[in-house]
Amino acid sequence: MSAEERQPPFYLGIDLGGTNIKSGVVDDLGRAFEGISIETEAERGPEVGLRNLVEAGNRAVKASGLDWSRITAVGLGSPGTMDIQEGLLLNPPNLPGWVNFPIRLRLGEALSKPTILQNDANAAAYGEYWSGAGRGTNSLVMFTLGTGIGCGIIDHGKVIEGRHSHGAECGHIIIQMEGGRKCSCGRFGHLEAYASATALVKRAIEALAENPKSALAELHNHDELTSRTIHDAAEAGDPLASRLMSDTARYLAVGAVSLMHTIDPDIVLFGGGMIAAGPKLLDTIRGEIKKLAFPVPAEKTRIEYAQLGGDAGFIGAAGCARLKATAEGH
Amino acid sequence: MSAEERQPPFYLGIDLGGTNIKSGVVDDLGRAFEGISIETEAERGPEVGLRNLVEAGNRAVKASGLDWSRITAVGLGSPGTMDIQEGLLLNPPNLPGWVNFPIRLRLGEALSKPTILQNDANAAAYGEYWSGAGRGTNSLVMFTLGTGIGCGIIDHGKVIEGRHSHGAECGHIIIQMEGGRKCSCGRFGHLEAYASATALVKRAIEALAENPKSALAELHNHDELTSRTIHDAAEAGDPLASRLMSDTARYLAVGAVSLMHTIDPDIVLFGGGMIAAGPKLLDTIRGEIKKLAFPVPAEKTRIEYAQLGGDAGFIGAAGCARLKATAEGH
Repeated sequence: MSAEERQPPFYLGIDLGGTNIKSGVVDDLGRAFEGISIETEAERGPEVGLRNLVEAGNRAVKASGLDWSRITAVGLGSPGTMDIQEGLLLNPPNLPGWVNFPIRLRLGEALSKPTILQNDANAAAYGEYWSGAGRGTNSLVMFTLGTGIGCGIIDHGKVIEGRHSHGAECGHIIIQMEGGRKCSCGRFGHLEAYASATALVKRAIEALAENPKSALAELHNHDELTSRTIHDAAEAGDPLASRLMSDTARYLAVGAVSLMHTIDPDIVLFGGGMIAAGPKLLDTIRGEIKKLAFPVPAEKTRIEYAQLGGDAGFIGAAGCARLKATAEGH
Repeated sequence: MSAEERQPPFYLGIDLGGTNIKSGVVDDLGRAFEGISIETEAERGPEVGLRNLVEAGNRAVKASGLDWSRITAVGLGSPGTMDIQEGLLLNPPNLPGWVNFPIRLRLGEALSKPTILQNDANAAAYGEYWSGAGRGTNSLVMFTLGTGIGCGIIDHGKVIEGRHSHGAECGHIIIQMEGGRKCSCGRFGHLEAYASATALVKRAIEALAENPKSALAELHNHDELTSRTIHDAAEAGDPLASRLMSDTARYLAVGAVSLMHTIDPDIVLFGGGMIAAGPKLLDTIRGEIKKLAFPVPAEKTRIEYAQLGGDAGFIGAAGCARLKATAEGH
């Protein structure tokens, strides 16, 4: 699609990660121009990071073939902790040293555009809601499965940001209060401690002690144990790997059901690197949800994979910028 | 306050329970006239129940000293299961035989007023939000502790009803996925299976086997074991009763924290009969929440008891009727 076929106005989305910055221009219907990616260089601190955000934005606008003057507003998705309303990064674990950094103000000044800040997982959920797997729905819960578990919730077209910018931190709902696993956050029994890619590998290593003949032992010896190789071993018929994958599906179903009994959305999405495991994992999750949920949501709630991949973040950030701009009549 | 001092327009709220119907008129600021209560006679079926709803409404309007002509709209809170949007009761466990009953239409016809249906726990949460302990907040989660655990969630002034009228069924979030207690709904590990008044008594009876010298044994022998008598025994220093009460507080904190990491509201409220336990239970819940929640919500989220008691349901139902009427410009 050429720039002429797109629907103005246009918005720039930027997805700030600990490793890379992704950015792209998005049209009024949520259709993205080709995105770009550059390194964050997070360890060099927020001033260098800010320069890189500006560079990413410039490259994305250039890649779109549009002039900067046609960009109405900018949306930035960032990992937390943050104050969304104030546009501040507080002390994000993935951006060490970016403490109390007024990123919305600084980026907005640097780009001379109205700019909003959003949590990255919220932005990804909004991206899928606006123009991905959640298109046409009214409410959505999305889990992003990676080293951790991110979550975003949309209800009646609004992101549940929370009073203290902690809305949808559902990787940290408690699913096993007694004798629960330790989470990366230091607390116990959280969903993330069971169902993230990191947790899957950890569970595999623990289980190897009692299953030394598993194909996973060889992978572990070669330092090749990842959520991907565990999935591949399950596909190849390794019993331990199969059990670990089906446990993962069950844990994810437990989290999904608690959200279905809280938000009761149209659709629950799973995104992130782990969905490379393909349709079998999704079907297993669906089966477990049917066992655990109340009859009506069990029957009617759609359970799907996300569709936008790594672009969901910048598309959703652009979408949040559009929401704000529209509300303010730009 | 006399009728003259109230702020029109006026709304009638009706709270339909399995045993009693409560009703009262509420003014535009959420201030209730004195409410009335009559028996539901639920077992006599929905037609008798409907007559009783009409009778309750008539008595409440009469008690207000207003003429029916001054009532703008009617809100009905009811136990589930239901279809809120369609105004249907589906198959409520507490109203046996009221199956697929178009209660909103029938009640609206009988009273000749615009009428809305709301889940009873949602209505109670909205009541507290509008004119109780949540007044002045922007978002709220309320747990109603009784034989079960009801829940209602308000975000930005809207009730989270859910796509299938299952929003805020948070008595049925999973807090112990492995080896969890059986819930009244038949599933396992739900919050309600640990922290309701019924669950407290059940845990007490189980624990008596290993603590035969507890003061609770005598109560049990006289069939006087209730959440109230267990609380009283704890106050009197019985070690088992004290442990049971502090466990209850911890379970409630687990549920509250999962909601704080999902909705991140301004305030979490506890209501229902169990709050007769008083300030000590609330303080224990607060202490447990501080241990389990992320630092910012742990510090900033207010944790309080509800204030409206048994009137929250009809006040909130009237408030939901007002929301609808206002949106439609009545």
